Amino acid sequence: MIQRKYYEDYQIGDTFETASLTITESHLVQWAGLTQDFYPLHMDAEYAATTVMKERVAHGPFLFALSVGQMCLKEWINYDAIIAWLGSDIKMLKPVRIGDTVHVLAEVTEMRETSKPHQGIQIWLYKVINQKGEVVMENTMKFMMHRKPQE
Amino acid sequence: MIQRKYYEDYQIGDTFETASLTITESHLVQWAGLTQDFYPLHMDAEYAATTVMKERVAHGPFLFALSVGQMCLKEWINYDAIIAWLGSDIKMLKPVRIGDTVHVLAEVTEMRETSKPHQGIQIWLYKVINQKGEVVMENTMKFMMHRKPQE
Amino acid sequence: MIQRKYYEDYQIGDTFETASLTITESHLVQWAGLTQDFYPLHMDAEYAATTVMKERVAHGPFLFALSVGQMCLKEWINYDAIIAWLGSDIKMLKPVRIGDTVHVLAEVTEMRETSKPHQGIQIWLYKVINQKGEVVMENTMKFMMHRKPQE
Amino acid sequence: MIQRKYYEDYQIGDTFETASLTITESHLVQWAGLTQDFYPLHMDAEYAATTVMKERVAHGPFLFALSVGQMCLKEWINYDAIIAWLGSDIKMLKPVRIGDTVHVLAEVTEMRETSKPHQGIQIWLYKVINQKGEVVMENTMKFMMHRKPQE
Amino acid sequence: MIQRKYYEDYQIGDTFETASLTITESHLVQWAGLTQDFYPLHMDAEYAATTVMKERVAHGPFLFALSVGQMCLKEWINYDAIIAWLGSDIKMLKPVRIGDTVHVLAEVTEMRETSKPHQGIQIWLYKVINQKGEVVMENTMKFMMHRKPQE
Amino acid sequence: MIQRKYYEDYQIGDTFETASLTITESHLVQWAGLTQDFYPLHMDAEYAATTVMKERVAHGPFLFALSVGQMCLKEWINYDAIIAWLGSDIKMLKPVRIGDTVHVLAEVTEMRETSKPHQGIQIWLYKVINQKGEVVMENTMKFMMHRKPQE
Repeated sequence: MIQRKYYEDYQIGDTFETASLTITESHLVQWAGLTQDFYPLHMDAEYAATTVMKERVAHGPFLFALSVGQMCLKEWINYDAIIAWLGSDIKMLKPVRIGDTVHVLAEVTEMRETSKPHQGIQIWLYKVINQKGEVVMENTMKFMMHRKPQE
Repeated sequence: MIQRKYYEDYQIGDTFETASLTITESHLVQWAGLTQDFYPLHMDAEYAATTVMKERVAHGPFLFALSVGQMCLKEWINYDAIIAWLGSDIKMLKPVRIGDTVHVLAEVTEMRETSKPHQGIQIWLYKVINQKGEVVMENTMKFMMHRKPQE
Repeated sequence: MIQRKYYEDYQIGDTFETASLTITESHLVQWAGLTQDFYPLHMDAEYAATTVMKERVAHGPFLFALSVGQMCLKEWINYDAIIAWLGSDIKMLKPVRIGDTVHVLAEVTEMRETSKPHQGIQIWLYKVINQKGEVVMENTMKFMMHRKPQE
Repeated sequence: MIQRKYYEDYQIGDTFETASLTITESHLVQWAGLTQDFYPLHMDAEYAATTVMKERVAHGPFLFALSVGQMCLKEWINYDAIIAWLGSDIKMLKPVRIGDTVHVLAEVTEMRETSKPHQGIQIWLYKVINQKGEVVMENTMKFMMHRKPQE
Repeated sequence: MIQRKYYEDYQIGDTFETASLTITESHLVQWAGLTQDFYPLHMDAEYAATTVMKERVAHGPFLFALSVGQMCLKEWINYDAIIAWLGSDIKMLKPVRIGDTVHVLAEVTEMRETSKPHQGIQIWLYKVINQKGEVVMENTMKFMMHRKPQE
Repeated sequence: MIQRKYYEDYQIGDTFETASLTITESHLVQWAGLTQDFYPLHMDAEYAATTVMKERVAHGPFLFALSVGQMCLKEWINYDAIIAWLGSDIKMLKPVRIGDTVHVLAEVTEMRETSKPHQGIQIWLYKVINQKGEVVMENTMKFMMHRKPQE
């Protein structure tokens, strides 16, 4: 039985910090296979060595997807507050390399009621942070959430 | 040896249509494991049956990632025009269910030169389209691209 | 940054209930590949139809492993209370079929201090429960845990 | 410690029959991701329905690879008789569909000594057989094998 | 066609030694994704470096599962003697690190008939052994097995 | 919508060069799990060190499968010219090690019409080439292809 949280259980400025994951070559290989993204910068070490990156780097969309998942484990897996993900605005800021370790610092940045009394919209900023404390990606998530039933 | 294309090889209004993929239960299971997103709407058939969706639906971020990969196979895997993905603006429009088949219709929508003569920015709109012809996601991709070397 | 919990933060009788997972054919295929367990009762539909099970059933050890993981998401991923898993006593009670949905109900059943002041042992009973409310496995986990530092 | 078998431990006409595997949609999805073969006949149910096959079929090269693996489990995993696989001659005879169950019937068909006293060549015919008893593929494997050390 | 062995084909004291597997980072990543066990000692290199282990270690339950699979390849895949796995008693003795190579030494330790003439119970001790010859886990498996049909 | 090419769109001597993939330990682990090929030369680093190879090498059949997939991305994913793969003749020439990078150079070597006016047979030679420019495998593919409809 999942314990429900509601729109009203979060407030602007609330922050959440997730567990971390070390990015491995295995993540890149599995990601490419699942999403069809075999772009040589991620999969061809000879080619990557000739680029400004000097080596294979993680797929940017994987970092986005992981930020969604890390926050799922921190909060959403145990409290099904979300009705639907409406979209994201993603900014890729720095490359992530094999061996880097990333986690998410999330913050509620906007809340607004809708015309439907049982739904509310919230905007959360997920910052993906590497082991040096650098923000490598900003992912602004837009959610439709359950509102608390009124008597 | 990858054949290079350049910023100049694309023009506003150019369109590309990818091959299609049928979304399976196996994609959902692998996606959850790779990204840590075990949210019950995607992974718990009993719970999903109680929601407005009536059944498990594909993770929205998977559709985004797949749109990136499908266009990789259509164009980027063979022509390394891209220096870096700078980010995306994603709008999730309709749910995708197990058994649905999706592909991407992509269009170049903006191009602008930068202060660096070897780099240019392009905006591409990737529309994810299901087997009924419905647009289920709009993913606006922002790329830094190689410009053609000048004599 | 992981928030630590300690041996002292749990008491005999505390219970935890996890999110659920629907077991799919894809789980069986991935499990076999990762663990080398291609036993025909799990992988050969023709053979399984001739047994008392009538169809392929989930690998019992997968249910054990999943119970460990489901409780990880419920509690341990966010609070690193555990130093080491010392072992388990597992009783397989009922088969789990493709399409069944399972979760864990966990309870602290024993606690004991050790000769080392910074370590304590706890026994937790993880009951794996299917969508009908039946207990399909009992997994008694033995943990070495961090004790709260004393002034 | 692996127990060694030698070239001399096999004779022309020796046969081996493996355990079976039911081919699932999950095998097709994992195969495509690992080998980059997203050809629509295997991955796009809408397209496949318009072909003479009427539905997605298993990748032929997967059946070849599986025949190699099924015989590995039957014999080679426990007896390291093989120095190297020198190549194969493969004939694809019938399509395999999701839900079909296949195993291998293998036979030693040729043996010849080489100029090196510690090496011998053997040819094995691996027939892939479906649940109806039909031969769906013939895979003729050529091996360099260890010869028994002479006093 | 699987060749059947029976309860009567094994005797107390019979031993079996399996092939070996080198544990890789890829096993840890796949295991976490399949079982949901993303505990930082296994997945976060920065965190693991601060623990007494000094580095990421393999999930204990993976070693258990692998011991089941390695014995499947040694014996059970080719002889379907087992009706059901009734449970295990597992003792985790030493950590296993990325790069370690493990195999199983198994021994029949108990046999007893049951009230049903076609079923017998056997207890097998699976010792997981690393490349230094150290026993890292003891897994006592309890099986319900087919008995030989009586005339 | 896939754009069709036909038998007539290819000519003897046409060549195609694919993107490259760096072979990783993760590929070997996933391959073994999917195909059941856990032969110790590929999976047991301790054993491999005692062989003439000195280290684990990639499964030969994986290189074959990858050659099929790399050409799929280069050509077939976007142009469904192929009705069926009829078989292959494979020669394994040199071992491929973890960290090697391979691509395919393909050439049309034979074409022949059949008695059916809508089908033609083509033979393509796929050479797998490593980062040193060495041909490590020759894979001669036999295809049944669509012929151009006649007025």
